[in-house]
Amino acid sequence: MHGHTFLLAPDSFKGSMTAKEVCLAMETGLRRVYPDARYIHLPMADGGEGTVQSLVDASGGTLHEREVTGPLGAPVTASFGLLGDGQTAAIEMASASGIHFVDEHTKNPLIATSYGTGELIRACLDFGVRKILIGLGGSATNDGGAGMAEALGVKFRDANGQELRRGGGGLAELRSIDTSGLDPRLGQVEIVVACDVTNPLCGAQGASHVFGPQKGATPGMVKTLDANLSRYADVIAQQLGRDVRDVPGAGAAGGLGAGLLAFTRSELRRGVDIVLDYNRFERQAAEADLVFTGEGGIDVQTRFGKTPYGVARASRRAGKKVIAIAGFVGDGIESLYDEGIDAVFGIVPGAARLPDLLAAGPENVARTCENIARVLKLSGWNSRQEPPI
Amino acid sequence: MHGHTFLLAPDSFKGSMTAKEVCLAMETGLRRVYPDARYIHLPMADGGEGTVQSLVDASGGTLHEREVTGPLGAPVTASFGLLGDGQTAAIEMASASGIHFVDEHTKNPLIATSYGTGELIRACLDFGVRKILIGLGGSATNDGGAGMAEALGVKFRDANGQELRRGGGGLAELRSIDTSGLDPRLGQVEIVVACDVTNPLCGAQGASHVFGPQKGATPGMVKTLDANLSRYADVIAQQLGRDVRDVPGAGAAGGLGAGLLAFTRSELRRGVDIVLDYNRFERQAAEADLVFTGEGGIDVQTRFGKTPYGVARASRRAGKKVIAIAGFVGDGIESLYDEGIDAVFGIVPGAARLPDLLAAGPENVARTCENIARVLKLSGWNSRQEPPI
Repeated sequence: MHGHTFLLAPDSFKGSMTAKEVCLAMETGLRRVYPDARYIHLPMADGGEGTVQSLVDASGGTLHEREVTGPLGAPVTASFGLLGDGQTAAIEMASASGIHFVDEHTKNPLIATSYGTGELIRACLDFGVRKILIGLGGSATNDGGAGMAEALGVKFRDANGQELRRGGGGLAELRSIDTSGLDPRLGQVEIVVACDVTNPLCGAQGASHVFGPQKGATPGMVKTLDANLSRYADVIAQQLGRDVRDVPGAGAAGGLGAGLLAFTRSELRRGVDIVLDYNRFERQAAEADLVFTGEGGIDVQTRFGKTPYGVARASRRAGKKVIAIAGFVGDGIESLYDEGIDAVFGIVPGAARLPDLLAAGPENVARTCENIARVLKLSGWNSRQEPPI
Repeated sequence: MHGHTFLLAPDSFKGSMTAKEVCLAMETGLRRVYPDARYIHLPMADGGEGTVQSLVDASGGTLHEREVTGPLGAPVTASFGLLGDGQTAAIEMASASGIHFVDEHTKNPLIATSYGTGELIRACLDFGVRKILIGLGGSATNDGGAGMAEALGVKFRDANGQELRRGGGGLAELRSIDTSGLDPRLGQVEIVVACDVTNPLCGAQGASHVFGPQKGATPGMVKTLDANLSRYADVIAQQLGRDVRDVPGAGAAGGLGAGLLAFTRSELRRGVDIVLDYNRFERQAAEADLVFTGEGGIDVQTRFGKTPYGVARASRRAGKKVIAIAGFVGDGIESLYDEGIDAVFGIVPGAARLPDLLAAGPENVARTCENIARVLKLSGWNSRQEPPI
């Protein structure tokens, strides 16, 4: 009998394992039952934390670090990935401008800037890439991506022609935008923005009202920030001829979505779809007999663009069955069965505290996958016909 | 396609579900995938806590209560089962003489008596049963079963012909045993003793040395108790012509094993084997396509006579595959695969405290079994051929 092929396409288990490490643990367990099978590792992600690492791991790329401007102006060390094709880079905006760089006392969306994210984009351009994948989410900023644009050469001026101070507060004085210094390499680069929210830039569902408070905005600051982004959208529309105000996702990452749409050749897409496409998921799935996916937690939220959901939908298109594992199996997983996740198993061996479970992740993944394989084996599973002799 | 038959043969999940409740939860989950299957419920046990309940549930019997003499002399309410065949009773000795009736301050194996267990046996005889299954284990006593025998009419006398005081301490004065008053109904009754230890009555591996300390015996008391049981064995051998001293299991339950062998028609067997036999397990397994078992915890200890192990061995003899579930999956389960447990799954959905898990047992069993069934389904599992049309 010729061997089976398993496609292993998990997300990371946050705080426990990278997606690549999950792949390895899955194979360890499955191989105990199917030693001669072929195992395709496809570390996955959904545009959130861990996306760059997964893309680098999946493509055989490299991680790079740069000192850039943090959200409050102080330098921070951020990373980005050059993917295995040599033409694509991947960035998580939070790596440069994330909320984890501020604390309860320092968080202030009036001054927080996305400037560092622009510096990261510039660092990617220096490598001559043709495409940049950018994951939004986890930002400390509410500046509409103005800081990002400034780092790439755009100048934002007040009525006196002076450059604005950085941050969402400074945009109150915005009168004109000068794009003459915009890095010309951006014209040759396609930017694909991983964005799972549909919030517009302004208004009750906009960046400031919905995400401002968690970044430290008081009710008064929310009003100011929202008015400032509205002015920002107006000036962009008047002077650049681009109406980004109501584009779904423009309000993501403090309006960075809007900024990318205004100043670069960008499209906004679901994070997991970007990763699926980049990894040529369906082509890989076509070669597989069965797909394994997983994530730290799987619950009713999974259907809103999480990796197991994306993997299941893509696998279904390829006509493949999907088994998912998770460190936490929450309520509402029944709804996932209809979306192509054929079975879900928790990996936790018993009553335990989270820190111990995080440490034991690999062995719990391996044991669970081994036993799933044992069920396949006892069932006489053999998805393919014997080749004719 | 005709339906599958699942044999559901779990132990109880201690503190969470009786074995019957586990069967129900298993069916709930499996039925979501195989609605037309046949489900045979066989609540199992291994001779330990829950054995009477499982046997009653499996056979459609009844539970009964009696006020009997507790281990320290005060009355306690104990229970026993009359099984569905109307000819068999089941007792757990701990129900009358268990360690849970004493505490840190009152435990004292010099005075603790198995008298109440004898009263329970008498209550069973009153129902006219032909067979009594007795689970040892969890005893507070170290009296060699002398109290049990006394309740059934045996008299233990000292050099002056006076009856001994009860408890392992009183046996120091034993000179003669008078069995003339022994309940004559015992001659017609077969007693099957569930006993998973092989300790002899006396000596370094005997009841007093090995189990005495956990019942409150100091080192000095251990010596006394061991010497007393040795005297007890001597008098039994001299006057009854039965040598029980070195029978494996004679030292179980403070020597109750020895007492049952000396004064009744008893055989000692592995608890799980008794339950398997009583439930005609292999006959039921022959009708099944797949067997599910489980227990609160499954680990390297499971192979020492626990229910999942017994079920697996019996299923293997019947040529059937076995899938086990557990609230806690411990180390060393690999060794169980070779014993016929084909796969093991934990039911815990994530990091959680034990009390919450105990409360959520049924839904976690159901979800886990449902997903195992979903894997069977996706694998195209169909253990039987289509019947000819």
